[in-house]
Amino acid sequence: MQWTETDFPFGLGSDNHSAVHPRILQAISDVNFGFAPSYGTDLVTREADKLFQTEFGLSSVFFCFNGTAANVLAIGTLIERHEAVICSQHAHIAVDECAAPESLLGCKLITVASPDAKLTPEMIQPLLIRRGDQHFAQPRLVSITQPTELGTLYSSSELATLRAFCDRHGLWLHVDGARLVHAAAQLGGLKQACLGADAVSFGGTKNGLLFGEAVLFLSSRARERAKNFPYFRKQLMQLPSKTRFLSAQFQCFLENRFWQELSQHSLKMAKKLRDGLEEAAKLGAPIQFTQETQSNAVFAIFGEQLEKALKDEAFFYIWDEHTREARLMTSWSTKDSDIERVILRAKQAGRPA
Amino acid sequence: MQWTETDFPFGLGSDNHSAVHPRILQAISDVNFGFAPSYGTDLVTREADKLFQTEFGLSSVFFCFNGTAANVLAIGTLIERHEAVICSQHAHIAVDECAAPESLLGCKLITVASPDAKLTPEMIQPLLIRRGDQHFAQPRLVSITQPTELGTLYSSSELATLRAFCDRHGLWLHVDGARLVHAAAQLGGLKQACLGADAVSFGGTKNGLLFGEAVLFLSSRARERAKNFPYFRKQLMQLPSKTRFLSAQFQCFLENRFWQELSQHSLKMAKKLRDGLEEAAKLGAPIQFTQETQSNAVFAIFGEQLEKALKDEAFFYIWDEHTREARLMTSWSTKDSDIERVILRAKQAGRPA
Amino acid sequence: MQWTETDFPFGLGSDNHSAVHPRILQAISDVNFGFAPSYGTDLVTREADKLFQTEFGLSSVFFCFNGTAANVLAIGTLIERHEAVICSQHAHIAVDECAAPESLLGCKLITVASPDAKLTPEMIQPLLIRRGDQHFAQPRLVSITQPTELGTLYSSSELATLRAFCDRHGLWLHVDGARLVHAAAQLGGLKQACLGADAVSFGGTKNGLLFGEAVLFLSSRARERAKNFPYFRKQLMQLPSKTRFLSAQFQCFLENRFWQELSQHSLKMAKKLRDGLEEAAKLGAPIQFTQETQSNAVFAIFGEQLEKALKDEAFFYIWDEHTREARLMTSWSTKDSDIERVILRAKQAGRPA
Amino acid sequence: MQWTETDFPFGLGSDNHSAVHPRILQAISDVNFGFAPSYGTDLVTREADKLFQTEFGLSSVFFCFNGTAANVLAIGTLIERHEAVICSQHAHIAVDECAAPESLLGCKLITVASPDAKLTPEMIQPLLIRRGDQHFAQPRLVSITQPTELGTLYSSSELATLRAFCDRHGLWLHVDGARLVHAAAQLGGLKQACLGADAVSFGGTKNGLLFGEAVLFLSSRARERAKNFPYFRKQLMQLPSKTRFLSAQFQCFLENRFWQELSQHSLKMAKKLRDGLEEAAKLGAPIQFTQETQSNAVFAIFGEQLEKALKDEAFFYIWDEHTREARLMTSWSTKDSDIERVILRAKQAGRPA
Repeated sequence: MQWTETDFPFGLGSDNHSAVHPRILQAISDVNFGFAPSYGTDLVTREADKLFQTEFGLSSVFFCFNGTAANVLAIGTLIERHEAVICSQHAHIAVDECAAPESLLGCKLITVASPDAKLTPEMIQPLLIRRGDQHFAQPRLVSITQPTELGTLYSSSELATLRAFCDRHGLWLHVDGARLVHAAAQLGGLKQACLGADAVSFGGTKNGLLFGEAVLFLSSRARERAKNFPYFRKQLMQLPSKTRFLSAQFQCFLENRFWQELSQHSLKMAKKLRDGLEEAAKLGAPIQFTQETQSNAVFAIFGEQLEKALKDEAFFYIWDEHTREARLMTSWSTKDSDIERVILRAKQAGRPA
Repeated sequence: MQWTETDFPFGLGSDNHSAVHPRILQAISDVNFGFAPSYGTDLVTREADKLFQTEFGLSSVFFCFNGTAANVLAIGTLIERHEAVICSQHAHIAVDECAAPESLLGCKLITVASPDAKLTPEMIQPLLIRRGDQHFAQPRLVSITQPTELGTLYSSSELATLRAFCDRHGLWLHVDGARLVHAAAQLGGLKQACLGADAVSFGGTKNGLLFGEAVLFLSSRARERAKNFPYFRKQLMQLPSKTRFLSAQFQCFLENRFWQELSQHSLKMAKKLRDGLEEAAKLGAPIQFTQETQSNAVFAIFGEQLEKALKDEAFFYIWDEHTREARLMTSWSTKDSDIERVILRAKQAGRPA
Repeated sequence: MQWTETDFPFGLGSDNHSAVHPRILQAISDVNFGFAPSYGTDLVTREADKLFQTEFGLSSVFFCFNGTAANVLAIGTLIERHEAVICSQHAHIAVDECAAPESLLGCKLITVASPDAKLTPEMIQPLLIRRGDQHFAQPRLVSITQPTELGTLYSSSELATLRAFCDRHGLWLHVDGARLVHAAAQLGGLKQACLGADAVSFGGTKNGLLFGEAVLFLSSRARERAKNFPYFRKQLMQLPSKTRFLSAQFQCFLENRFWQELSQHSLKMAKKLRDGLEEAAKLGAPIQFTQETQSNAVFAIFGEQLEKALKDEAFFYIWDEHTREARLMTSWSTKDSDIERVILRAKQAGRPA
Repeated sequence: MQWTETDFPFGLGSDNHSAVHPRILQAISDVNFGFAPSYGTDLVTREADKLFQTEFGLSSVFFCFNGTAANVLAIGTLIERHEAVICSQHAHIAVDECAAPESLLGCKLITVASPDAKLTPEMIQPLLIRRGDQHFAQPRLVSITQPTELGTLYSSSELATLRAFCDRHGLWLHVDGARLVHAAAQLGGLKQACLGADAVSFGGTKNGLLFGEAVLFLSSRARERAKNFPYFRKQLMQLPSKTRFLSAQFQCFLENRFWQELSQHSLKMAKKLRDGLEEAAKLGAPIQFTQETQSNAVFAIFGEQLEKALKDEAFFYIWDEHTREARLMTSWSTKDSDIERVILRAKQAGRPA
């Protein structure tokens, strides 16, 4: 079977529809020699770990296969099964993991209504009830997504406020960072993008890697709880055997902040799309923006015909069945010319017939 | 960081210490274009699926990340949580998965003493007690490994006997085929290597792939039970997003029976090692073989000094702490010259000083 | 240790603060002879089962220890782990079972905001999204509480509407009937109180029994799914050994509709309390009723001083920490004179100083 | 329905076939007044707790419904899900709990062949392998049954030896004491019967109670781990609501060592049965004793006709389907005359026709 470029047409469906960045693939190839110990004891993994320490500060770093697993492993390390997780109603852990957290950790998720998918202390405070009541799963961890599933961003000061709130109430803070690089590119670095977090799910797959995510424990209390993580990961079937190939990708990703380059392109493409669609809207195209574009996605509701027309240009998801809110997502591999074609189509919808 | 061949020295530790076969890596590269739907709906996955049908006959095929997951997903699709799995005391599911089957499926494993890691109806029959007794987890599935963890092989007729036994007693038959290719190379094909199985964990990682395993449901009853597999896999965190890169590997692996080429080299290297060590033993080297070599491993107990000497040449595992039984495992990438060096060292131990 | 009546002072805390009705205790004593097979195979259990068939129609009946278990066992028999349960935000399964459903079944609960704790098709309909999407726990069961945790009642026509809705959408209907008798006393019988339910958790403990609940499967599809219930119950540690003593209680409870007598007294006491507090409110006592009194509880917010004063008379729970909504609950053993004393105190708060 | 003594004929099936001792039932009746807080905060529970402290020394005491639950809750408090439990192949947790430990705790059970169901350090030592290997569920707890499921008894010095062994190897020691009273009656007290245990499942149901078991944490390390027990118990659906009725039974059971009186009768009846059957064997009756009678059971294999004849006199279980080993079990309510009738029948089998 011979594959060609036309088998893989342009789309705005998701950043995991993208290919692997050639430099990442090269990094895999660069360690493809002879023999290496499996399960994380190889030299490549050791080097990758060092780079994580450089970027995030002192941390316990573990690799796993995918984002759902990173979240479940991170959260499960911090809480007991009778404890509950507070998250936004839009959180990936709540709506896109087929109840993996509940099923595998035995814990409860308490979801908070939040129009922009961000949490504030004011939203969390009222949920901190019935402390010490054995009948009630005890809220013990706040999980936020940075940037959020709706493409919005926590600012540094919002992060600090949440951290302080968590400290006051004895809560862990977990950051689902499947796309953390897009926050990092705007907030001054990876560490800054999740400052205050006890644990972070750090994503590679959606940012140009072939596969692979990292679970990071940053605070000393969290690192202490992670001492049995290797067993936990193995039991939850997330221990990769040929780890060097996962580590090589992360090494490449972190070295010289290659992630930043990849993210900046994604963000630029999203901004270009947003700007173009806004122009189209000004021209009369039926577009109602539903979220700020602070990451690599544009969320909007299109008129019925426009929605169809745009789907001719690029696949994208209808995010909300009820409102027909759509998500258009860019990635490291999105091309200027493709975005321009989408914008053109939108502008045509705004012009008088 | 620049890696070189010397960072990855020869070893006989495991077939997952090996690198990725260049053709497999090329196959990944060959689909590394533009955009593809994630989660298994891409064209590459469709093509790979066709090849599975060709090799295994009508089957439901699902990919996942690793072998432990393949086993747990396969078994968990067939049995209920109050049912028990019968397997050998050496089974990977019993001793190398950190209780993942018990933990994630809620089931019981009943292990059978078996010197060569193979099961027979005579071993299973006495365990089929207390049928219908609600206090007793009901034996309902027999899991065998083909070839076994001790490098032994079920013959076609042994497989047929087990299948007939399972039919008589209403038992599912699962094959852990992490190394099924080595059985297939000797029994006439992949289907033949697991004939009679309701479900198979089919391994790629240990046979030259970067990562990836397949779960196959072969019997019609098993395929019926697999109808909700996608949810189950997602909840157990084993749904790969960029599936095309996994599928491309399997496509390459199955096309023109490339797996056979890889396996035959492994088997040849194991035989060479076995033959050489037997010669050394005849020369007086302190080597006690503990298993037949019917797959890609040699199991033996070495004298203390010889064990040390051999470890200078190549890393390998002590398989049994008590007896110091060692496992020396070959792979697609084992070189003749490396094996020869190991044999030479062994022969030196047999020579008069 | 000699206990006297004064060790057990009057309260309105919960119907499970009540004692065992003497006739129930006598029923236990009446089967306290010699020897009986354990685990449900005794004659008493057979007789109790017959009475259930009489009251509820053809049904599969299983006993267990408590209400949380009845709910989890009932729901877990009907759904798979990737399926989700829709219930009110006030549902016992959601807020009073310490995440037992999630933890033990691996499923997700989706809670619906409902001021009176009742569900309507209009509330459920918008949640039936993403059918067939493997990432999303699939809504598959609606669980209602009859009467609700807020003391409100589903009418026969509301039940019929929900059943029809569930039929249209392929949903199971479960009724948490920890206090079903209070619905039954008003809707014409136990069967009528849960008409349309596939499964019912039928409560004894809160209605005068020493302990014990029953799980009933009523529809033929539900009964079919319950065929492995005995194993499931045993594994979830809910198989009582000396079953006759549990069955004897239910026999007494059902025979000649003794439950009705117990319920009617509870309801009468709750109505008396409600009427008295309403009179007090008219006299100026600071009482804001928050729910209808359609079962054995009065929900209201009292002025701070009145709340304190009433607590001198009888213990009761503050149901909502934020609003200080209180729940005053009657039972089969509540006495007229005790209620009168509480009402008197409330009326005093309404009088001019 | 009127029940009479003839509905409950004599049997030797199990001690949980017995009725409730009248004094225990009276104790329930003695607290059957007015209102009491539920879920363990009542006065009766406080008193019962004091008696436990007196009998067992400083301990954390929690009630639950049945023996399987007591075991699971005790073990689950001490170990993590990646840790393994070592127990005899005859252990109740291994063969009579329908995989509840595996399913609810996610842990592995490692069973040890032991003809008399007792464990020794020599049996356990070889299982302590692969420490620190993430693939291998780590042995961390030894669970023994005292007296065992085969009616044998650990002596005080055997207990001490096991405790010392556990200390040396960092293992918890759990005692399944469903029938601990029979050990206590012979070893000088309840505490002595489980000396050295970190946690004990202390049984009531099989010794004359209506229902109810206690989970005890004795060592300071175990008590520390039990600090979240209330949530854990609630989530595992073992929190009784009307706790006073459970506590009242234990109060009666412990007060003035009433348990001793009950046990001594059981033991006396078992000894009488054993002695009688031995005499019968001497007379030529086909009886092969398979275990010592150190508790309230006789284990033996009868000739086919004798087995049938004895079953006419009293129901009992065939314990081993393969050998037809039978278990004849006495209880607090077994009568001398009943035992005599059984013995007579056995002796008849020994007489020449």
